[in-house]
Amino acid sequence: MSVNLLAPNPATLYPVPGVRIGVTEAGVRKANRKDLTVVLIDEGACVSGVFTQNRFCAAPVQICREHLASGKGVRAMLINTGNANAGTGEDGRVRALSTCKALAAKLGIEANQILPFSTGVIMESLPIDRIEAGLDGALADMGDNHWLRAAEGIMTTDTVAKAFGTQVMIGGALVSITGISKGAGMIRPNMATMLGFMATDACVSPALMRQLATELAEGSFNRVTVDGDTSTNDSFVVIATHKVKHAVIDSLDSADGQALKAAMLSVALQLAQAIVRDGEGATKFIAIKVEGGNTTAECRQVAYAIAHSPLVKTAFFASDPNLGRILAAVGYAGIADLDQTGIDLFLDEVHVAIKGGRNPLYREEEGQRVMKQSEITVRVVLGRGDAADTVWTCDLSHEYVTINADYRS
Amino acid sequence: MSVNLLAPNPATLYPVPGVRIGVTEAGVRKANRKDLTVVLIDEGACVSGVFTQNRFCAAPVQICREHLASGKGVRAMLINTGNANAGTGEDGRVRALSTCKALAAKLGIEANQILPFSTGVIMESLPIDRIEAGLDGALADMGDNHWLRAAEGIMTTDTVAKAFGTQVMIGGALVSITGISKGAGMIRPNMATMLGFMATDACVSPALMRQLATELAEGSFNRVTVDGDTSTNDSFVVIATHKVKHAVIDSLDSADGQALKAAMLSVALQLAQAIVRDGEGATKFIAIKVEGGNTTAECRQVAYAIAHSPLVKTAFFASDPNLGRILAAVGYAGIADLDQTGIDLFLDEVHVAIKGGRNPLYREEEGQRVMKQSEITVRVVLGRGDAADTVWTCDLSHEYVTINADYRS
Repeated sequence: MSVNLLAPNPATLYPVPGVRIGVTEAGVRKANRKDLTVVLIDEGACVSGVFTQNRFCAAPVQICREHLASGKGVRAMLINTGNANAGTGEDGRVRALSTCKALAAKLGIEANQILPFSTGVIMESLPIDRIEAGLDGALADMGDNHWLRAAEGIMTTDTVAKAFGTQVMIGGALVSITGISKGAGMIRPNMATMLGFMATDACVSPALMRQLATELAEGSFNRVTVDGDTSTNDSFVVIATHKVKHAVIDSLDSADGQALKAAMLSVALQLAQAIVRDGEGATKFIAIKVEGGNTTAECRQVAYAIAHSPLVKTAFFASDPNLGRILAAVGYAGIADLDQTGIDLFLDEVHVAIKGGRNPLYREEEGQRVMKQSEITVRVVLGRGDAADTVWTCDLSHEYVTINADYRS
Repeated sequence: MSVNLLAPNPATLYPVPGVRIGVTEAGVRKANRKDLTVVLIDEGACVSGVFTQNRFCAAPVQICREHLASGKGVRAMLINTGNANAGTGEDGRVRALSTCKALAAKLGIEANQILPFSTGVIMESLPIDRIEAGLDGALADMGDNHWLRAAEGIMTTDTVAKAFGTQVMIGGALVSITGISKGAGMIRPNMATMLGFMATDACVSPALMRQLATELAEGSFNRVTVDGDTSTNDSFVVIATHKVKHAVIDSLDSADGQALKAAMLSVALQLAQAIVRDGEGATKFIAIKVEGGNTTAECRQVAYAIAHSPLVKTAFFASDPNLGRILAAVGYAGIADLDQTGIDLFLDEVHVAIKGGRNPLYREEEGQRVMKQSEITVRVVLGRGDAADTVWTCDLSHEYVTINADYRS
């Protein structure tokens, strides 16, 4: 079940020169599914990443941070599903590093030029024998048009593969941007999401790449939530292969910098929203816009309080305009000096509450009509200032409980 | 469906001299159910209350705060179900006050000597005509042994009435303590719970009553959660009727003060835990103990992160020892300098994780055995200090979704 989420359009998944991908069935947890992906990156590319703020961050996240910090130049990524290698202590680090060493030996590079990623069940030992035995199969599968295969290869409880691409003119040259993501549950990214990868053949300075990775995550993956659970393995990596020969972009102030960021953000946003559309058990896709706040941060805080309320989420599932639940969530979001008499609430264009009370002109049939839609915008006006922010989420259905009560069985 | 929650034992619901209760069917929202309760309090009693921190607090909560602050001496409480009178703006205040005035006229007292309470659907107009028409019926029903009727009269989605009492010797005299509560969803009290009322015939100074109300709430209602949604109407009121003639208690440092607080806390804790045991759709009652923290506050923060995680709650529902989800919640609870390698996890006596990784001696069958119980203790040892705290919660089942998707229909 997913909400208006189409299968990826292969015609828009532009190959990115400098990036090749191979996928195989390594049997990490279950047989007969693509579960091991290797991404090869040509020398000279610039790679940046942001990772989960969860203090129980997984072993591969720790290794990724160390390898990126080593400054050796990333040449490959190794991604497995079926096991998150999180909550595995020192042994988990040894195992993540072992898979990097095995791949490095085959490629003739250093182990710290490889970024490892794992996603799946937490607190189980990573089966490195099966992963290492699968490397040859992945390397034999290498191709520059395998983005869709990679999107399939990193799926867990996802029901639809997530891949988007675009092209944009930069410095008079045509630049490609393609990305993939995965995730459907344990989604409340904090600095990045479960797994997201984007590549472009544009030329971007290393300093700007770090800034771009942060800003893209902030504007996309950091504004979606399914269940409020921040994963131990959230990772978002951006690659610029520098294959298109235009002047290096080293600032977002230039026209080229702005054009590139806008194009990359549009892909990142589609990848992030696709995760919500494929949210576990989701039947509705809901944008929560909070306006009139003193700061963007407080707007986002209110939006997340609404987005995480089980009562709000079940009301959306039921198409029940029980909208007092939204006001209650606004009230407990944590703004100490919030004045309820300044607050208005809209459901799409329907004006539900005015100055903290029910709008006398509001008719339940109108709320009901909007609640039955598969795409809904909740707009809260705080009446305190000029700041605004938006968060995207989905409803909470029986299917969510079923999926998460049965996930390991 | 409730978890090991017995119907109240009438033998322990001691009448509290100075308190009489009447209950009637006013048809506030539905016919043929007890939905209006009037509590009469003799002159000379001392009454204190704590209320929701939700900024969208309901009109009756606002009126209660004002009437308590007026210092006029509370003589009655008026409680309706079926309508929360929250998110109703200025009109809601006028309506709450109107019901106080109507009751005051019948009793020959001032309107600000009455505390109004409402619980039910948010953002709908309070039907004062039906409430005011019901007052005579409630007054005709007055009795000093009607605590159980009152517990039934304040139920909404509760499946079991919640009432507990005890007796204790204070200053050589036998003192009675009886209380009632209601609540099953929208439960994450912040300073108090949905509705909780306790009365004793002991003599307690006004200043100490305020302290007692806060400390009792802090040790009971403020440590339970069902769904993390802080209600707009949370109210907890403590009444001391001063009918037993012992020396006035004005400090918790005395032996009598400690004995009274312990007895009142035991009743408050049973009332609060009863709400979790009757949590919407609950099949398990779970104590989450967090030890070894630097402060009680950070222990409680971690406990609530676990208690609110939909992934943890659905794993409990499924009896699935998918315990990595607990570690993930510990990791995102918000302790910035948390070291995962210092953390141990126990499920009852089973040592699941050690130093942040799976305990090599842990066997899944043992975790499975505990997860199948209806009462489970999760114990997290942070390894940072000597502070500890406990929070009580329940699991997240299909039934929760059903109840909250259908609540208004």
